Amino acid sequence: MPLLPNIPRLLDELAHLATISAHPAPAVTRVLFSEEDLTARAWLLTLAENAGLRTRSDSIGNLFITLPGSDPSLPAVATGSHTDAIPNAGAYDGVVGVLGGLEALRSIAESGETPRRSIELIMFTAEEPTRFGIGCLGSRMMAGTITADEARQLRDPNGISLEQLRPPQYSGDLAATRLTPGSYSHFIELHIEQGPHLEAAGIDIGLVEKIAAPAAFRLTFTGTGGHAGAVLMPGRHDAFLAAAETALAVETAALESGSPDTVGTTGVIEVKPGAINSIPCHALMEIDFRDTDLAARDAALIRIRQSAETICERRGVQLDWFLINSDPPALCSQEILAVAETHTTDLSYTSTRLISRAYHDSLFMARLCPTAMIFIPCLNGWSHRPDEFSSPQAIAKGTTLLAHTLLTLAAS
Amino acid sequence: MPLLPNIPRLLDELAHLATISAHPAPAVTRVLFSEEDLTARAWLLTLAENAGLRTRSDSIGNLFITLPGSDPSLPAVATGSHTDAIPNAGAYDGVVGVLGGLEALRSIAESGETPRRSIELIMFTAEEPTRFGIGCLGSRMMAGTITADEARQLRDPNGISLEQLRPPQYSGDLAATRLTPGSYSHFIELHIEQGPHLEAAGIDIGLVEKIAAPAAFRLTFTGTGGHAGAVLMPGRHDAFLAAAETALAVETAALESGSPDTVGTTGVIEVKPGAINSIPCHALMEIDFRDTDLAARDAALIRIRQSAETICERRGVQLDWFLINSDPPALCSQEILAVAETHTTDLSYTSTRLISRAYHDSLFMARLCPTAMIFIPCLNGWSHRPDEFSSPQAIAKGTTLLAHTLLTLAAS
Repeated sequence: MPLLPNIPRLLDELAHLATISAHPAPAVTRVLFSEEDLTARAWLLTLAENAGLRTRSDSIGNLFITLPGSDPSLPAVATGSHTDAIPNAGAYDGVVGVLGGLEALRSIAESGETPRRSIELIMFTAEEPTRFGIGCLGSRMMAGTITADEARQLRDPNGISLEQLRPPQYSGDLAATRLTPGSYSHFIELHIEQGPHLEAAGIDIGLVEKIAAPAAFRLTFTGTGGHAGAVLMPGRHDAFLAAAETALAVETAALESGSPDTVGTTGVIEVKPGAINSIPCHALMEIDFRDTDLAARDAALIRIRQSAETICERRGVQLDWFLINSDPPALCSQEILAVAETHTTDLSYTSTRLISRAYHDSLFMARLCPTAMIFIPCLNGWSHRPDEFSSPQAIAKGTTLLAHTLLTLAAS
Repeated sequence: MPLLPNIPRLLDELAHLATISAHPAPAVTRVLFSEEDLTARAWLLTLAENAGLRTRSDSIGNLFITLPGSDPSLPAVATGSHTDAIPNAGAYDGVVGVLGGLEALRSIAESGETPRRSIELIMFTAEEPTRFGIGCLGSRMMAGTITADEARQLRDPNGISLEQLRPPQYSGDLAATRLTPGSYSHFIELHIEQGPHLEAAGIDIGLVEKIAAPAAFRLTFTGTGGHAGAVLMPGRHDAFLAAAETALAVETAALESGSPDTVGTTGVIEVKPGAINSIPCHALMEIDFRDTDLAARDAALIRIRQSAETICERRGVQLDWFLINSDPPALCSQEILAVAETHTTDLSYTSTRLISRAYHDSLFMARLCPTAMIFIPCLNGWSHRPDEFSSPQAIAKGTTLLAHTLLTLAAS
């Protein structure tokens, strides 16, 4: 029986969620546990309850929306993504997987068919690293790659801890968020590609075989400040110049890694005192480095560290190197990919296999159960910017494929 | 008759002013028209009124504290400096010239001697460029190097205009702040050296012959954002990397200018969106560049601009170059220096002639009247940092010399 997601309803909901933002349209900003994040969460739960779905949350704020199966004793099939958004981002990253996932559940419920396994939509807490510098916080805690004790050490840039920020509705024991492998039978995430390949090739669906291995690290440079007019150049230990040189070394290491997929990005730079007439005495940089090739990535990281140490020694600047995270790549489930591919053919969609270079909650769900991802095209491959865009047709196809794939997996 | 400044009183006042700060001790932060700046201004006026001195202000918030002379129709002799402080600065930069100047006026008043010319202490508005990116705002407006119309265009980093920030007590016509040359007979500023020479040589007093030529400019780099995982390296137009490379070019231009006094500093860098997993689409840098040799400085500026343009063209990043200010050097008054030198000998202080590489209100007062500066040693040449320090002995000598020099000039 064909499932018929209500696409106008879904598009209306996508448009509404984009208005819950700390920055004016078209920008979307929803930072973990901000007023906007909490408003979006409450609105999502209301949508789910209005659709007759069950809702619950865990102590890190992951939300679970369940369509009960005929045999609820079996591990559920799950889908999900995130609704948080970095500053000045767009309306599709993460959100398509959450609202598309909700629409998939509703379309199954409205079809009258009862799946054997329960089907669960997960809205993961803080896929974006904006607040604590670490991405995929919710799925990491579910998979146990960050412990409750480690989570309690997290501080945002203002020094506020996760414990201080956690709202009362998520007040339980953090350790209880951890799940055991096998808690779900399958996990499949719908997401915009965040890359240009599907759009350029005119292909409807990307089936993700492998998720790249990301690492993130924070470098702090401590030099010597002073008045910009008074300290002559040879006597300087400028923390920002050491950082600037290191950022260029990150780029060089990515370009020369030998792997075409290596990407290195210095997305955060902050200097103190931050006055035009003062030599920076302190600089902080946060760097994201990824590859599908773990060996190439780790060799490049060693090279970056050596470069940073050489630069800092030459400049008389102290370097502090903090690894935020370093995750191995994930291989996707061939079983799920095969089911999705069959439905793609049935639905007359075109598809291709892809590699994901972006971080996803799927990377951590893959530690708990067989996992895969469905990508849909997005304009110019853009994401994390206000003009991020996926067409209604692309969203409709992704959501329809997700619904069919979930229903088939739930029958297994 | 020897003048006897009350040094314990002055030191108490220096210590008290340091507590009026937006950051905890030992840091001192007083940004233009912040609560701390307004509190410090009110306190200073109360001190002056308690000493029986006359006070007034102009429409940009320059404060004038006057000891009337026997012939008030003559142009006054003036001294002064600033009490604003960049974020996380120290307790001496500027402040020694204001509170030392106040003590000098009090010591003359308390001596019972009435000067022929009035003697005026000026607390200049916003010597530091923290809020509007332009330093010496008050003295520039007095000298007419920035017009009232230009001042009305100023915006702080939050887009707030000078007009919106100006408190009611400074609500008059901005154009009325401008003075005509000859409004004062002489100007002499007491200041910490902000360099290491006096301390290293064990000399009490530096008499400034020349003030270096500073230029300041703001560069904005507009590239292309995107997800850190999804955009491969060859397709990037990273605004921060273009900025980082340009900051290193500023350093190179300063090092290779051919003049040992050239200094170039990138003190401000801000990137957007500023998330670890986002390629920076926008970067802003503010650069300070100075020399005692105007030709060397301007040749270096041309070189920096060429480097920045080449870097941005290669990286596909758009560059916007905004010159905040570019000021010629000032020559100090030999007449004032000779008077100060005579008193130095009478007081048995050691002294030397110096060049100032830091910006000072004196640079602009020199356009209105004969001007000079008295420098006192400071620890390690440090300034613009919490551990900035000048000894009580150094402050006492500088203040005593200032008082005598003012009284002699006021008799002329």
